[in-house]
Amino acid sequence: MTTINRTSSKSCFGGKVEFYKHSSSSCNCEMSFSIFIPQEASTENKLPVLYWLSGLECTEKNFMEKSGAQRCAAENSVIIVAPDTSPRGCNIEGEDESWDFGSSAGFYVNATQEKWKNHYNMYDYVVTELPKVIAANFPVNDKKSISGHSMGGHGAMMIAIRNPEEYYSVSAFAPICAPSLCPWGEKAFGGYLGDDKNTWKMYDSNCLVETATQKIPILIEMGACDPFRETQLHLETFHETCQKHEYPLTANIHEGYDHSYYFVASFIEKHIEYHAQHLRSLS
Amino acid sequence: MTTINRTSSKSCFGGKVEFYKHSSSSCNCEMSFSIFIPQEASTENKLPVLYWLSGLECTEKNFMEKSGAQRCAAENSVIIVAPDTSPRGCNIEGEDESWDFGSSAGFYVNATQEKWKNHYNMYDYVVTELPKVIAANFPVNDKKSISGHSMGGHGAMMIAIRNPEEYYSVSAFAPICAPSLCPWGEKAFGGYLGDDKNTWKMYDSNCLVETATQKIPILIEMGACDPFRETQLHLETFHETCQKHEYPLTANIHEGYDHSYYFVASFIEKHIEYHAQHLRSLS
Repeated sequence: MTTINRTSSKSCFGGKVEFYKHSSSSCNCEMSFSIFIPQEASTENKLPVLYWLSGLECTEKNFMEKSGAQRCAAENSVIIVAPDTSPRGCNIEGEDESWDFGSSAGFYVNATQEKWKNHYNMYDYVVTELPKVIAANFPVNDKKSISGHSMGGHGAMMIAIRNPEEYYSVSAFAPICAPSLCPWGEKAFGGYLGDDKNTWKMYDSNCLVETATQKIPILIEMGACDPFRETQLHLETFHETCQKHEYPLTANIHEGYDHSYYFVASFIEKHIEYHAQHLRSLS
Repeated sequence: MTTINRTSSKSCFGGKVEFYKHSSSSCNCEMSFSIFIPQEASTENKLPVLYWLSGLECTEKNFMEKSGAQRCAAENSVIIVAPDTSPRGCNIEGEDESWDFGSSAGFYVNATQEKWKNHYNMYDYVVTELPKVIAANFPVNDKKSISGHSMGGHGAMMIAIRNPEEYYSVSAFAPICAPSLCPWGEKAFGGYLGDDKNTWKMYDSNCLVETATQKIPILIEMGACDPFRETQLHLETFHETCQKHEYPLTANIHEGYDHSYYFVASFIEKHIEYHAQHLRSLS
């Protein structure tokens, strides 16, 4: 069993917000995550988990500090786990030089490029390793859902599309919908995966929906005034691809809202309730 | 009319979180504040204001980012105004040297000491100047309540005790209840007000309740595990003083909670509703 080290524990809405560090075998470094555990969680009352993947420049802290999700998670008896957005401190040349690549920008892929492949395996970390760490250390049942914001919104969609049997539901706030087609995604995928764009497809939701057979419905919230909407997020392109391939997508555009946590906080209750509803189902 | 400059505007729970800077006559420098304006506020539908005073190390941002108060403020049709915690950038020697004195630590007093008195007049700023700035620029009516956290929790209590006719209600999270008796207060009052402890009394709630005639009831939330409870907050002393002088105080102690915004966020809804109830009253 992986040893995890608690660095902080805070009472919050009757439950606990806690922060942990542990040695990650996927990333070959110390990784960090936060967890919200509702009051009633116990070995006799194991609860489902909503995984939250954060965006560029974020850590495991932002969601817990700014989303206000704990209130609704407590009401809906859902545990929330929010991992850090990348490996850190790996002594890779240039890892801390960009805000949109390297540290804080793991993009939830398994790197294939020599420089990054020993550490930048966020896909394996989120899909396989972290759920085992959580299951071994917390009162969780085997039901999981996944959501996220921006880079993490895409990560949540991509992971759920590829693993529809693993997740009860998926949603995203302001996701990068087609990373192969935008500057953020091109930089990250090029850096971690190399120049062959065919290898990008397995990490690009806009490509994955074309071939998905078991289709997990996607719920998206997007701010109409999101400054990254046109250049980086490409919701319209994704919407067209989903329509063409009959992939179930619900996308809600909100007048006046931008890309910030004020936007996430305003609609998180709806998403927590959406996931809780799926996680309570018997299937 | 004071010119105010908007630096940011974010949609949030149907309303707007906005950040402003303006030239302050009380503090002789540029001051910053944030404001949450519910959607329905307009010149035809002016709303009451809850002033929020933040604690040490905070700015005008913390409450808006971390409290989750906008949700309940929107539901209760209350505008929230949160000023910065001190003047900044005044070129006073040592103003940025301590985390508990100078910048981020104005303690809501009018300084009398030569070094600070031209700028550190947070009492006048919060009580007199800021409400005028708000009234001149936003759709507010003349109803005000006040609340805050830690240093700001004390500021809210002290200001309301001294101006009971100005505020409809007052509350505090983890306030420094008797600043003259704790290290944070001694350092700040000594620095801003000098060594004569008689001059401290007009800014110390634990002294002010002794002589208050018009008594505005105080509502306090306190975490039982607040690490500053014994050394800095002195709720028990304040409770005894209030009992002795028949000053109305309700203090709720919460098992497991500490001094953080996870604590504030957990109970802010109750306080917003408390203030909204008073602000809706006819008196």
